[in-house]
Amino acid sequence: MIPDYLAEALGEVAADTTGETAGYIPELATADPERLGAAFAMVDGEVYGAGDIDTAFTIQSISKPFVYALALSDRGFDQVLAKVGVEPSGEAFNEISLESGTGRPLNPMINAGAITTHSLAGPEGLQPTERVERITDGLSAFAGRRLKMDESVHASEMEHAHRNLAIAHMLGSHGVLTGDVQAVVDGYIRQCSLLVTARDLAIMAATLANRGVNPLSGERVVPEPVVRQVLSVMFSCGMYDAAGDWATQVGIPAKSGVAGGLIGALPGQIGIATFSPRLDSHGNSVRGVSLFERFSSDMGLHVMEVPAAARAALRTHHVVGSGLSALRVLQLQGGLGFAGAEKVVREVVGAAHLEVRVALDLTRVHSMDDVARRVLLEVVRRLTLDGHEVYLVDPEEVMPDPDPGDGGRVTVVTHLDQAVNAQDTSAALRSRPQ
Amino acid sequence: MIPDYLAEALGEVAADTTGETAGYIPELATADPERLGAAFAMVDGEVYGAGDIDTAFTIQSISKPFVYALALSDRGFDQVLAKVGVEPSGEAFNEISLESGTGRPLNPMINAGAITTHSLAGPEGLQPTERVERITDGLSAFAGRRLKMDESVHASEMEHAHRNLAIAHMLGSHGVLTGDVQAVVDGYIRQCSLLVTARDLAIMAATLANRGVNPLSGERVVPEPVVRQVLSVMFSCGMYDAAGDWATQVGIPAKSGVAGGLIGALPGQIGIATFSPRLDSHGNSVRGVSLFERFSSDMGLHVMEVPAAARAALRTHHVVGSGLSALRVLQLQGGLGFAGAEKVVREVVGAAHLEVRVALDLTRVHSMDDVARRVLLEVVRRLTLDGHEVYLVDPEEVMPDPDPGDGGRVTVVTHLDQAVNAQDTSAALRSRPQ
Amino acid sequence: MIPDYLAEALGEVAADTTGETAGYIPELATADPERLGAAFAMVDGEVYGAGDIDTAFTIQSISKPFVYALALSDRGFDQVLAKVGVEPSGEAFNEISLESGTGRPLNPMINAGAITTHSLAGPEGLQPTERVERITDGLSAFAGRRLKMDESVHASEMEHAHRNLAIAHMLGSHGVLTGDVQAVVDGYIRQCSLLVTARDLAIMAATLANRGVNPLSGERVVPEPVVRQVLSVMFSCGMYDAAGDWATQVGIPAKSGVAGGLIGALPGQIGIATFSPRLDSHGNSVRGVSLFERFSSDMGLHVMEVPAAARAALRTHHVVGSGLSALRVLQLQGGLGFAGAEKVVREVVGAAHLEVRVALDLTRVHSMDDVARRVLLEVVRRLTLDGHEVYLVDPEEVMPDPDPGDGGRVTVVTHLDQAVNAQDTSAALRSRPQ
Amino acid sequence: MIPDYLAEALGEVAADTTGETAGYIPELATADPERLGAAFAMVDGEVYGAGDIDTAFTIQSISKPFVYALALSDRGFDQVLAKVGVEPSGEAFNEISLESGTGRPLNPMINAGAITTHSLAGPEGLQPTERVERITDGLSAFAGRRLKMDESVHASEMEHAHRNLAIAHMLGSHGVLTGDVQAVVDGYIRQCSLLVTARDLAIMAATLANRGVNPLSGERVVPEPVVRQVLSVMFSCGMYDAAGDWATQVGIPAKSGVAGGLIGALPGQIGIATFSPRLDSHGNSVRGVSLFERFSSDMGLHVMEVPAAARAALRTHHVVGSGLSALRVLQLQGGLGFAGAEKVVREVVGAAHLEVRVALDLTRVHSMDDVARRVLLEVVRRLTLDGHEVYLVDPEEVMPDPDPGDGGRVTVVTHLDQAVNAQDTSAALRSRPQ
Repeated sequence: MIPDYLAEALGEVAADTTGETAGYIPELATADPERLGAAFAMVDGEVYGAGDIDTAFTIQSISKPFVYALALSDRGFDQVLAKVGVEPSGEAFNEISLESGTGRPLNPMINAGAITTHSLAGPEGLQPTERVERITDGLSAFAGRRLKMDESVHASEMEHAHRNLAIAHMLGSHGVLTGDVQAVVDGYIRQCSLLVTARDLAIMAATLANRGVNPLSGERVVPEPVVRQVLSVMFSCGMYDAAGDWATQVGIPAKSGVAGGLIGALPGQIGIATFSPRLDSHGNSVRGVSLFERFSSDMGLHVMEVPAAARAALRTHHVVGSGLSALRVLQLQGGLGFAGAEKVVREVVGAAHLEVRVALDLTRVHSMDDVARRVLLEVVRRLTLDGHEVYLVDPEEVMPDPDPGDGGRVTVVTHLDQAVNAQDTSAALRSRPQ
Repeated sequence: MIPDYLAEALGEVAADTTGETAGYIPELATADPERLGAAFAMVDGEVYGAGDIDTAFTIQSISKPFVYALALSDRGFDQVLAKVGVEPSGEAFNEISLESGTGRPLNPMINAGAITTHSLAGPEGLQPTERVERITDGLSAFAGRRLKMDESVHASEMEHAHRNLAIAHMLGSHGVLTGDVQAVVDGYIRQCSLLVTARDLAIMAATLANRGVNPLSGERVVPEPVVRQVLSVMFSCGMYDAAGDWATQVGIPAKSGVAGGLIGALPGQIGIATFSPRLDSHGNSVRGVSLFERFSSDMGLHVMEVPAAARAALRTHHVVGSGLSALRVLQLQGGLGFAGAEKVVREVVGAAHLEVRVALDLTRVHSMDDVARRVLLEVVRRLTLDGHEVYLVDPEEVMPDPDPGDGGRVTVVTHLDQAVNAQDTSAALRSRPQ
Repeated sequence: MIPDYLAEALGEVAADTTGETAGYIPELATADPERLGAAFAMVDGEVYGAGDIDTAFTIQSISKPFVYALALSDRGFDQVLAKVGVEPSGEAFNEISLESGTGRPLNPMINAGAITTHSLAGPEGLQPTERVERITDGLSAFAGRRLKMDESVHASEMEHAHRNLAIAHMLGSHGVLTGDVQAVVDGYIRQCSLLVTARDLAIMAATLANRGVNPLSGERVVPEPVVRQVLSVMFSCGMYDAAGDWATQVGIPAKSGVAGGLIGALPGQIGIATFSPRLDSHGNSVRGVSLFERFSSDMGLHVMEVPAAARAALRTHHVVGSGLSALRVLQLQGGLGFAGAEKVVREVVGAAHLEVRVALDLTRVHSMDDVARRVLLEVVRRLTLDGHEVYLVDPEEVMPDPDPGDGGRVTVVTHLDQAVNAQDTSAALRSRPQ
Repeated sequence: MIPDYLAEALGEVAADTTGETAGYIPELATADPERLGAAFAMVDGEVYGAGDIDTAFTIQSISKPFVYALALSDRGFDQVLAKVGVEPSGEAFNEISLESGTGRPLNPMINAGAITTHSLAGPEGLQPTERVERITDGLSAFAGRRLKMDESVHASEMEHAHRNLAIAHMLGSHGVLTGDVQAVVDGYIRQCSLLVTARDLAIMAATLANRGVNPLSGERVVPEPVVRQVLSVMFSCGMYDAAGDWATQVGIPAKSGVAGGLIGALPGQIGIATFSPRLDSHGNSVRGVSLFERFSSDMGLHVMEVPAAARAALRTHHVVGSGLSALRVLQLQGGLGFAGAEKVVREVVGAAHLEVRVALDLTRVHSMDDVARRVLLEVVRRLTLDGHEVYLVDPEEVMPDPDPGDGGRVTVVTHLDQAVNAQDTSAALRSRPQ
């Protein structure tokens, strides 16, 4: 059914033959312009596809966010941010766009930033070939299979590398690049010449959508904070001078490459890749852009859409029993973030009269993030200090380490009945056995 | 507890006395630089605050996203986008930044765009005072109370309006503004002179976070697609030339004003406002920026964070009974979007052997979006066509209008037992009574 | 014969109907595009012309160098240079082109600079109408007749003055313009609406070529240092973004106007004006540019041409008589500047043996500048100190005030024979009777 | 006396120790900052100097106008102008400043233009070393002695050549440079590493001032039109972003180099060079700029000064004899250009009654340019056609080839008496014996 949808979507855009294959490199100009494919990779590794999703082409600029992720992982944020900014340039991909004064490239999605980022992959002191090896390993880990390089594209691009060499020497003149800057360009073009398929790209995007863990291999490729940084930069800068149109109309962090690839990654949900070699004037795949507009609209994938899940954290609120044994039950549901936890706080704090015994029922909660956990534990702690007995009904251990700390106390049970019937709190478990 | 948190956060930033109050307008320069306040408004209207949240100050540039929303509502996307772009400018707030050739301002968050946007509020043909009235009404609807204008700030700014008059005449020379451009500037400065409090701003932001419905008044101020557009533009362009830093470090659609206000709106979750008059070199409130960095980090509010809710849509998958009466039960949970619905598709499509009788149990689902609904109904339809009997267990009517259409058929029940026991489908309800 | 030449030149360019009349002002767009005229005004006031040299049109930007001259005269260099620079902008005439930081317009030939210059004409504190009066008087003095304003062009331009109002307000925001900036724009457009003919413009240019003295009226309109400044700026900045082409191919300080006028002024030689309303993409008259290219080439008017006059200052060098009465005669010729005087120095200093009696014969010298005079007098002084008797043969009193000062002594005679025969220097005149 | 003047001028600027030696190349940074020298070279080869005029330093950017001259000579204007523009850039020397679209450097005085110009020296197809040889030969011809290269500066600059390599690759990407662009940069840096003295530079400048003929060797190094082009470009673009200040205050076509050299060339008059290594923020020698300001002011060297020689071409105008033998004599003087010849035309044409016999007396004329010659011959021709007998009194053969052509006839004599007494024109010489 999803493949049907994809096939139908491809059918609709197939008629659009506008745009041109990248003309500046002979090897790319000869690509078959009719190729067309699209793939979805879910964050648990399921892949759907239609069309040419197993045709190999060179990754080109789509390598940029992934190598940026590797550099951030390998060198840390400080070292990378000192050399490459995060501001949109409002300019074309091959503009030099260095920050006035420092010579720092404005962001890692333009060539100047990507060349610098390339030089920051792996630990300091790597030889150029070792750096290419590190990057090939890293991108292969994102893809979940060993990627190979297209030597003929690399050779062809090196013959037309004046612009990139100009950028690299300009970076050298500012001290942003050091050492043999021509070797950096050679390595960068090797990075761009790695062969991928739309299927690979969808998995790579899904690895970003899945917090940095490859959903096929289960390997953590980069840490979560790196993923957040990369997705933010893709959102602002991934589509060059069409960034604003993309941000408003599609709203998915994305990156395109001149060989016709285009990826999008929606956090927690999906990685998407399309392949169609004809490019528009911004250098983005014409049919790829149409497909993403359609996917975003059809599937509600815009990051500024209110997610369906973000509502109704507090399901019910009632009292069981009466007198001294009365138990105030707050039944929560869904996935809890700050906004959900806040409602619990409000109910508890705002209650005109609160029973001595209070239960937070997490039976219908399937997940909670760290801030929700901390807020709920603080609620528990304060209730304890105010003389309440607090129960946490958590049959599936949704709350890790339920220790309110500092004077707080909570009895964790697996069924609400246990809280209702617990007349003697000393008999109940204070905390879950570890 | 949340007020405690806010108070503690204010305490930490209070020591920072760097920055300067806006110097270019005498009335603003004399503001009390020590004022400090922060407010959270939840999407259901609950407001938390600490510090000076009821001190009135002029809204200034924070009016920009709201008036952009009004213009989009009043004139439609096409007419507004024809006159104001959505691309980040990478420049300071008062740069002219017109698109070369067309003279179209790059985005509605810089002054050139905001002046143009002002002229597009209300229907065509309004008199300048009527336009100001429309805007005052609109911003008051966002705030949930009638806003007043600070006439002395308006008068003071008009005396120093050279830059804005220059921008307006430049827009006039390109035909982007028509009619009396000086009256437009006067109106724009009136718009900027509306008096708000941090509490008001938090509610205004919460109205954006709440899909355009004011959580206090329940009034729909602008339609959902407008909100999505506004939040996208705030994310890319709201913090001027520091947009990239903000997008990566804070990750909340935001807007600042030179009187010291700063707002953020996280879709579906929260509206935040801070007030502290001293500004950094970008024109953003120094302590406001610090507070937002802290809020984002402490509470996991970055839009590129994977929301806790986005996981584990399919809870269990089991068979009840055996033989011909065997019922395959798929129990879903949480809030369902595309990614959740896709898992159901996969289970159903991928099952090696599927029983004749299938139940989709929505008992633990608290919400679903339109794409999830459509996907699930298509699953139902295909199952029917393949000869299956399908039950929808939906005690809380989470799925609106459960009609699979075109050959599909589904029996809606309120408890799983009804499906288990339904031996004769003709006896069951085919659809919920309307 | 010169009119024949001009008529022939007009005939050659008449066939070129490319270009467009200025479209942005209705009154100018309706000009008869076929009008064509050219005039030469010699520095002694003789005027030659062919074609439409008595057709009136608005002066437009050709007013800029003349008003710059008035401002420099009225306010002094320091005050004007503090507000308007002298650097080429490399941009179109209506670009804002302000110096980053100060907001100072780059030069007085672009609109931003010209509007500022307008505000600096006349003494401080003038009312707008008085300033326009001062400028009308000044430009009339350059032209040698009272100029009138075209009120309908003024009115038409005021209706399309957005760009100039934008520039003026931008200047106001930087404090470069003060007071009522809209009145400055009104005055500037009045200045541009003054009616002139090609004949007038040739005289105005000849006034610049003639060191600031109107060759018809004999009136000194502006001082010499002002003229030098104005011509220098015209050379670098007068033709907007085609300045370099013009400087190399034509090499005459020049200025064009959108009504089709074009002037050039070659110091000491000639003022030239052409009139043809169709403009090229730089805003310069198409046929005007062709005519100037031809004039420069045909008549050797390029400022970097070595002037014919600049050679051979020392005509002969011989000794008359012998023994103690021998007289060393240095016969000079032509117009003497530094380079000519230097040759005299060299001969005198370098002579292996120099007679006691030395005569500098200026009979064939028709003029000398101040530096030549000072150098020659210093030669005389040193010769005196070394024991020589020095005679100045100066029948036409080419050297003003021939006093070598400080120990120097010279005998001025009107014929070389007087020096030859002067056995007793005490009998001769030491200096010319005043 | 001139050396005294120079020594005095050096003394006045010596106290100024502001500025810094060029820091970006170690070999230049170690230059002795106290070095100070100035030299004048007259167009006949006389050289005056004071201070360190025989200290060798690298020519650096002062090579640019000379290599531009060589490229124009070797390849012709069209080929060079197709690759390098003539517009001021308004930017610093090492800005890339390419024309948008074509990638053509804006002018040959910035590095991008100079690197391109280097590649255009000599005929097409030269090897890099041959091109360096051609340039070394050419610059040596300008200097009048064989110049050597400073290999250590070349080596040092090559190690810091990132900026120039960036520029060269950018030019390569636009097809402005072809072949091995790194070899072009190497050659360009060799060109900049040629060693010169202030004396050499003064001679080189004097060669430009002397229409392209080296005044020492008498060798024509480049043709006259090339010199005019080079001087024009130096005037507009030679002092980088201070071009306008220089043009107005100094007014001499000039060029500076980062090793501390500075040259100026005033057509027909003088070549000037100064040497002082400390540079201002524009990269121009601090004390060099002061010296030139002084020289220009003291000696009236500004190109927009009216040259003393440019006046009074027609000396007298009288009739000798009476009746049929009456002779109208027009006595000319000085150097004749167009403006001078025009006066003759006017007298002849404007005369109410003109005698049959007319003499143009050139006895006091020392030179005339081509346009003056053509105008005078046309006057002669027309007089002949109107029935006049015309005499040319030209004892020194100032007018070459005095043939009025096409019906014109003139009798050339060496003394006015010959014309007065010539009753029978058939007896006189019609033209000078060849």
